[in-house]
Amino acid sequence: MDASTPAQPAADGAGTPHATHDEMANAIRALAMDAVQQANSGHPGMPMGMADVATVLFSKFLRFDPQRPDWPDRDRFVLSAGHGSMLLYALLHLTGYPEMTLDELKRFRQLGSRTAGHPEYGDAPGIETTTGPLGQGLGNAVGMALAERLLNARYGDDLVSHRTFVLASDGDLMEGISHESAALAGHLGLSRLVVLFDDNHISIDGDTELADTQDQVARFRAYGWDAERVDGHDPAAVEAAIARACESDKPTLIACRTTIGFGAPTLAGSEKAHGAPLGEDEIQATRERLGWPYGPFEIPDHIYAAWRGVGAGGGELTAAWDRRLAAADEATRSEFERRQRGELPASIADAIHELKEKAAEEKPETATRKASNKVLARIVDEMPELIGGSADLSGSNSTKVGAHRAASRGHFDANYIHYGVREHGMAAAMNGMALHGGVVPYGGTFLIFSDYCRPSMRLASLMGVRSIFVMTHDSIGLGEDGPTHQPVEHLAALRAMPRLRTFRPCDLVETAECWELALNNHDRPSVLALTRQNVPTLRTDGGRENSCAHGAYILRPAAQQREVTLLASGSEVQIAVQAQEQLAEQGIQAAVVSMPCWELFLEQPANYRDEVLGPSSLRVAVEAAGGFGWERWTGLDGTFVGMKGYGASGPYKELYQHFNITPEAVVATVKDWL
Amino acid sequence: MDASTPAQPAADGAGTPHATHDEMANAIRALAMDAVQQANSGHPGMPMGMADVATVLFSKFLRFDPQRPDWPDRDRFVLSAGHGSMLLYALLHLTGYPEMTLDELKRFRQLGSRTAGHPEYGDAPGIETTTGPLGQGLGNAVGMALAERLLNARYGDDLVSHRTFVLASDGDLMEGISHESAALAGHLGLSRLVVLFDDNHISIDGDTELADTQDQVARFRAYGWDAERVDGHDPAAVEAAIARACESDKPTLIACRTTIGFGAPTLAGSEKAHGAPLGEDEIQATRERLGWPYGPFEIPDHIYAAWRGVGAGGGELTAAWDRRLAAADEATRSEFERRQRGELPASIADAIHELKEKAAEEKPETATRKASNKVLARIVDEMPELIGGSADLSGSNSTKVGAHRAASRGHFDANYIHYGVREHGMAAAMNGMALHGGVVPYGGTFLIFSDYCRPSMRLASLMGVRSIFVMTHDSIGLGEDGPTHQPVEHLAALRAMPRLRTFRPCDLVETAECWELALNNHDRPSVLALTRQNVPTLRTDGGRENSCAHGAYILRPAAQQREVTLLASGSEVQIAVQAQEQLAEQGIQAAVVSMPCWELFLEQPANYRDEVLGPSSLRVAVEAAGGFGWERWTGLDGTFVGMKGYGASGPYKELYQHFNITPEAVVATVKDWL
Repeated sequence: MDASTPAQPAADGAGTPHATHDEMANAIRALAMDAVQQANSGHPGMPMGMADVATVLFSKFLRFDPQRPDWPDRDRFVLSAGHGSMLLYALLHLTGYPEMTLDELKRFRQLGSRTAGHPEYGDAPGIETTTGPLGQGLGNAVGMALAERLLNARYGDDLVSHRTFVLASDGDLMEGISHESAALAGHLGLSRLVVLFDDNHISIDGDTELADTQDQVARFRAYGWDAERVDGHDPAAVEAAIARACESDKPTLIACRTTIGFGAPTLAGSEKAHGAPLGEDEIQATRERLGWPYGPFEIPDHIYAAWRGVGAGGGELTAAWDRRLAAADEATRSEFERRQRGELPASIADAIHELKEKAAEEKPETATRKASNKVLARIVDEMPELIGGSADLSGSNSTKVGAHRAASRGHFDANYIHYGVREHGMAAAMNGMALHGGVVPYGGTFLIFSDYCRPSMRLASLMGVRSIFVMTHDSIGLGEDGPTHQPVEHLAALRAMPRLRTFRPCDLVETAECWELALNNHDRPSVLALTRQNVPTLRTDGGRENSCAHGAYILRPAAQQREVTLLASGSEVQIAVQAQEQLAEQGIQAAVVSMPCWELFLEQPANYRDEVLGPSSLRVAVEAAGGFGWERWTGLDGTFVGMKGYGASGPYKELYQHFNITPEAVVATVKDWL
Repeated sequence: MDASTPAQPAADGAGTPHATHDEMANAIRALAMDAVQQANSGHPGMPMGMADVATVLFSKFLRFDPQRPDWPDRDRFVLSAGHGSMLLYALLHLTGYPEMTLDELKRFRQLGSRTAGHPEYGDAPGIETTTGPLGQGLGNAVGMALAERLLNARYGDDLVSHRTFVLASDGDLMEGISHESAALAGHLGLSRLVVLFDDNHISIDGDTELADTQDQVARFRAYGWDAERVDGHDPAAVEAAIARACESDKPTLIACRTTIGFGAPTLAGSEKAHGAPLGEDEIQATRERLGWPYGPFEIPDHIYAAWRGVGAGGGELTAAWDRRLAAADEATRSEFERRQRGELPASIADAIHELKEKAAEEKPETATRKASNKVLARIVDEMPELIGGSADLSGSNSTKVGAHRAASRGHFDANYIHYGVREHGMAAAMNGMALHGGVVPYGGTFLIFSDYCRPSMRLASLMGVRSIFVMTHDSIGLGEDGPTHQPVEHLAALRAMPRLRTFRPCDLVETAECWELALNNHDRPSVLALTRQNVPTLRTDGGRENSCAHGAYILRPAAQQREVTLLASGSEVQIAVQAQEQLAEQGIQAAVVSMPCWELFLEQPANYRDEVLGPSSLRVAVEAAGGFGWERWTGLDGTFVGMKGYGASGPYKELYQHFNITPEAVVATVKDWL
């Protein structure tokens, strides 16, 4: 497909009812100010300022079909400046997405509507990602543009050949994540990524000059982007700039100089238009200034017809694509469709089972990060949609295997990404890849740096997308790097995050099981918290059942009537097992419960949970982390052996002694408590 | 003082024992490779690569006195690339910091040494900040350079006139925080900030070309910095570049092209020199290559003498500064010294008391963010060291008051910073300001965006510095902005962080008390979690006692024998109070406990905690957040009324109903449970 071919019939072209550009853009402005006024809250300024740019983009370039919002080869439009949500809702309504009715616009920001304060993925078709926390949409878009290139390399232009357009604000570009994402996109030469920067010179505190005087165009050029400035209220100039962007072999930033709240006689160009209703009087005056003689939420037929014509043009695009898919060979089509559905290859379950059998037999002493590498080495070839990567810790995270091919500029026949030292950009890109579909991303960093990408992990959880975070060096067990690198509160902070599943396997068998669960978590992200240091194989069964699927289970039952239940995860399960043995020598009967995933355990029936926890036993938890949250399982009658503050720098075995996280400490605690 | 005056006597100048530049630099290299080898872990490559640059900086420019490491007007040296800690330890040892003995270098990375894997603030004099998590040191340095300008504007060149030098790696500059920090520094024109970029083209995964091809010099120029490239192994070129930086009216980046592991015959220039010992054979070959005929940890006298001469030169600087301080007028000196000690003005306690008296009398219905604004309005003039700010949410966070003067380029007679949409950069700068001394920083954003600055909040906690995070819109109570803006797991995630204190006051009186506690938390950071929505005044006593200092207390005792204890914080305390009243009507006796600060409550004696919690009562917690962690107070016999997942977009009163966080829900829960 020729990059410069207009996607949809032009609004003023043959066969489309006549409405001027200004009328089409003013329809967006009017709906935005009316909806914000009706809600008595919201952000009218951005939709009014960017209405011209959005009208050009949607009517001249964007390839989409409102009747087929999940068409895999649609262009992606990401509203990174999510506070301007009414721009997106207005566009979805005007172009004819069936679910985005005028009634929904009237219910803007009301409970249960499809028109939340910020765009929420899943609330309505056409919302490609949840945005609002600034910079995230741009980060997602980099992932989408990357997924497109990876899939294009596999399936060719016939099936995968689209663009990703982003609307970003100065706030998006001030956030640190914009740096990570833009530098990565420039490095990889993601030429089908186009960012329309709403350069309105206004932030919440006032003129951007209060806090920001950087040259964004020069900055993006330093990243290897094309970048230029245009008058965002000159449709021809905007059109020419987007056309140039579509021809470029680099990603492009178009800084669109706009007036926030364009058309509002007293509030345009002021921060007062940013985040509050304009007020009835100003709205009336704006109608007059714009030459918009219609009432609230009123769009005349000829303008509706023009916009609907834009949307209707997508039908031809999807029909042609359907024909191309039908013409593809059976194996290609079948794989393409399986990947689009997000289904795993049937062989994965067998691969995991094999790994478990072998591990149960060989009983290696190995770090769980290395165990994870063994899993990857086994499945990477089976699962072409699995896209690995690391934030410059490929070796430490053990995320890379021999079969990996790293992506680079112009080389996208690849399944591994060197993300650079960019945890936040990596996580946001992973989310974008997962949202794009056809790929399953995982990415590695140290568990401590979950803090660096937490905003993106939260959005993965909120949206329910399958991003898999491989987070190694998960405790003081990393040793000499010291407290800046030793997570203490991170497991608790992740377990507190709704919908996310945090896995902390104790050995190779559990690591294989947790990977299987993470891959099958279609509707949510997962964290795999893995050790740097070696741990013994404790699971000696290699059966088909996935014990970790219960979240927690009795790994070692008490030989006789249970008096004590030892709860542990990851590298501390071995400590619990040793404590159990020492207690048995002293005539105290303990069971060891491995708890690789609290969230799954919480979903089990109460009688299963009771059976595992042994309600009448003394419960002692052991984890090389802070105890915050463990009372959920131990109650106030139980206790905890673990960290009380930050870690320290030293050889890890000494640290376990120093912080008193040892079998002996568990035994002593049990005896104190009993 | 003339900016170009060399700080210390030049190493090759008169009066200094003769050692060549190469000898001095090789001393650093030798100590670094020996210490890493001895520890059998660590990062030799960076110290060896940057030894030339560091030698020039320390011997020709840096103004410091090893005998007076806390000299307020010392130049700051920040090793942002904290993994190269041996560079810093070697320099501290060679220049004569008494605590940094050779034995400490030999105990590199051992438990209890002063030479942790990454530099830890407090472990040894001369370590200006804890670094290792990349980008943080650069962010701190921006705060230090800003504090210097703010204090210079108040105290003049005689007392405050120093520079801040940073050594940063490519990893530091890939991190998103580098964008926020550098853009802010460029915007404010912090000309006394100089960043020495170790441009060695190597990251952990291999050549930086794997993941990064941006033009850092062009990028920093886009931020309004001066930036240039030099050969980092050409001492004269480095000296000339630093001299130019000292003359510039902008912050400066000097990209020093270096070879990682300089001198190692087979490993130099390779990622293999980055993070592992070189090995005995390579070390021996390196000695030969460098012409370093000395044994492990052996520094010959003439090289020691040269380095010690550099350090000894600081004595004159501090003596002269002491004379200038002594010559200052009494009021100035007294205030300067008080601020250096970090003591509050005596009048603050009275101001807080007055506010409480007035609030208890007037009983306003007001959001706690507005209550916070009232506190600030009262104390900003009393406390010139208090430096406010917000990440572009000054109005929403209510962080700005009439008496504030915002800093801008060339205007530092100021006590307010418009940080821009840069939560992470703000938090790191606040930490740098707190570390610098003489100022007490607070900064605002929404509580949800604590995730955006969490790595810096953790470092504030780990270091124990007084950064005060004002985090408003602390629950679903923010309403229409929806789940992307509604914190659910953030209180738990912050409460899980060691040493940090998280305050969530319920009304104006508690807000005043929590501010007082935060200001007095000299050795740790605080979070003030504040409401967007109005809350009633519940505390009707305005006495001098700070009830919040207990962390939790009985706000409303049961009229008769207590059956139920209702635990709540912030905006949910009013719900507990209403539930108490409804329960009383039904003959059920409940007490209401306000819990503004878990951490302080945990520090109370057990008998006080028992008295408050009423161990024999049913305990029901109420908080518009996830329940993670509340079992610590309710036990498994109690229960929780709050959020079970993410929030939603809608008017806030409807959300409280929708999520069933109401007095009626509390009453129903109590009756179910009793």
